[in-house]
Amino acid sequence: MARIALTLEYDGSRYHGWQRQSEVDSVQARLETALSRVADSPVDVVCAGRTDAGVHASHQVVHFDTEAIRPERAWLLGVTQSLPSDISILSAQFVDPEFHARFSATARSYRYIILNRMTRSALHRGRITWWRGPLDESAMHEAGQHLLGEHDFSSFRAKDCQSVSPVRSIESLNIHRQGEYVYMDITANAFLHHMVRNIVGTLLPVGAGERPADSLWDILQAKDRSAAGMTAPADGLYLVGVRYPDSFGIKHAGAKPVFWSSCREMQSGCC
Amino acid sequence: MARIALTLEYDGSRYHGWQRQSEVDSVQARLETALSRVADSPVDVVCAGRTDAGVHASHQVVHFDTEAIRPERAWLLGVTQSLPSDISILSAQFVDPEFHARFSATARSYRYIILNRMTRSALHRGRITWWRGPLDESAMHEAGQHLLGEHDFSSFRAKDCQSVSPVRSIESLNIHRQGEYVYMDITANAFLHHMVRNIVGTLLPVGAGERPADSLWDILQAKDRSAAGMTAPADGLYLVGVRYPDSFGIKHAGAKPVFWSSCREMQSGCC
Repeated sequence: MARIALTLEYDGSRYHGWQRQSEVDSVQARLETALSRVADSPVDVVCAGRTDAGVHASHQVVHFDTEAIRPERAWLLGVTQSLPSDISILSAQFVDPEFHARFSATARSYRYIILNRMTRSALHRGRITWWRGPLDESAMHEAGQHLLGEHDFSSFRAKDCQSVSPVRSIESLNIHRQGEYVYMDITANAFLHHMVRNIVGTLLPVGAGERPADSLWDILQAKDRSAAGMTAPADGLYLVGVRYPDSFGIKHAGAKPVFWSSCREMQSGCC
Repeated sequence: MARIALTLEYDGSRYHGWQRQSEVDSVQARLETALSRVADSPVDVVCAGRTDAGVHASHQVVHFDTEAIRPERAWLLGVTQSLPSDISILSAQFVDPEFHARFSATARSYRYIILNRMTRSALHRGRITWWRGPLDESAMHEAGQHLLGEHDFSSFRAKDCQSVSPVRSIESLNIHRQGEYVYMDITANAFLHHMVRNIVGTLLPVGAGERPADSLWDILQAKDRSAAGMTAPADGLYLVGVRYPDSFGIKHAGAKPVFWSSCREMQSGCC
């Protein structure tokens, strides 16, 4: 029996989320089908972060056990070949049987991408959230700092969240702008259901000048979902990294999605 | 009668190129339909660069004439609303009747994007070209410098190219790498049919070590299509900018597509 860890990327647009469900299509079901074909026997996978419907990943991590004897290259290339075009394996490696994609993870990072301009994106539709009005990303960043540390995040927790505890610990929350793109990078030990999207949905009115940055502290203290803002769309959300103790030696194949840089930043070409 | 200039972006994946054709779908036909709806009368457009089937644009420029009296905002927002989701207007402005999107242009810039890693892209399928083997981008850049200046580009010209002259002038050709992504930026007064893709198809074997960088000079001198390499796929090609004399005051809404930067370059988050 071998335990294998994979890192993968996917465009979540046409899936009902990560988790396998009867009746609807999921990333997990597609991955297990491809792995089972290569293994020539059924394979069940465990992932680091169960992404919602429409949410993407540039760096998801999974593990699985198999009796099948295949080189790492087969798990990388053979499995990718058996996957639909919107899912791709980035790395495959044999790991210690102690390694667990979910329980060994010490932190997860997500990136949320907002296109802030007058008209929608033609090139990145479904993979970005669009906001037409002016956004003050510095005010959003300042507001987000109230959420750092260990707190009860009930105000940002979906009604149907099945977690036992509403307590999570946010390690960093950074918001910056590159031209027309506003990026939120957030890292925590783990996240509640819809937590990232509910935070974004609460920070957007701050960026639009409709709510003061300081209000985030009160919203957090309220421990009441109705105190916070709307759930931001799934389109702009990416799982971008998972941290494990170095001793497991998990290859880091991750990178963060960026979409456009202004011509001045590129400093080349005619424009 | 007013003359209006638009800049627009589009994902060319599902179109048979820019140019209107009977029987098949084109970006031009979609744009003219949307403009005619807003103008409430037929509109014909002229573009700066007729992109091929599957080729994208982050910054195409067009002009059209109309008797319809509408504010710039209507040409920007109203037209975008009437367009399919893979085409979007970036700017609209009234221009001097002397301005001509094609004949006033003094230079065009294209970017070609290659994903250089073991497995294909899940997030950017159709919008990027994938190359599995090692690529030496410095050798490709060096080879490309042989093409700078005014030359007869017959070696890089498609058989069905309808241009009167095969002479074009390349102002710059720069190739650089960002992580797993190799970018070619090329600017010329104008391009022959398939010229950018034929240049990429000839530089790729140089990057793979199958052809010396110096060979580009001989290939250029041969003035024979069979001396050069294959036509690289349309997927990775973007029209990214068009230059006009400053006196026309054309708004530059352009930006170049970038897709991923490595985590180290981003310097934030957990990965």
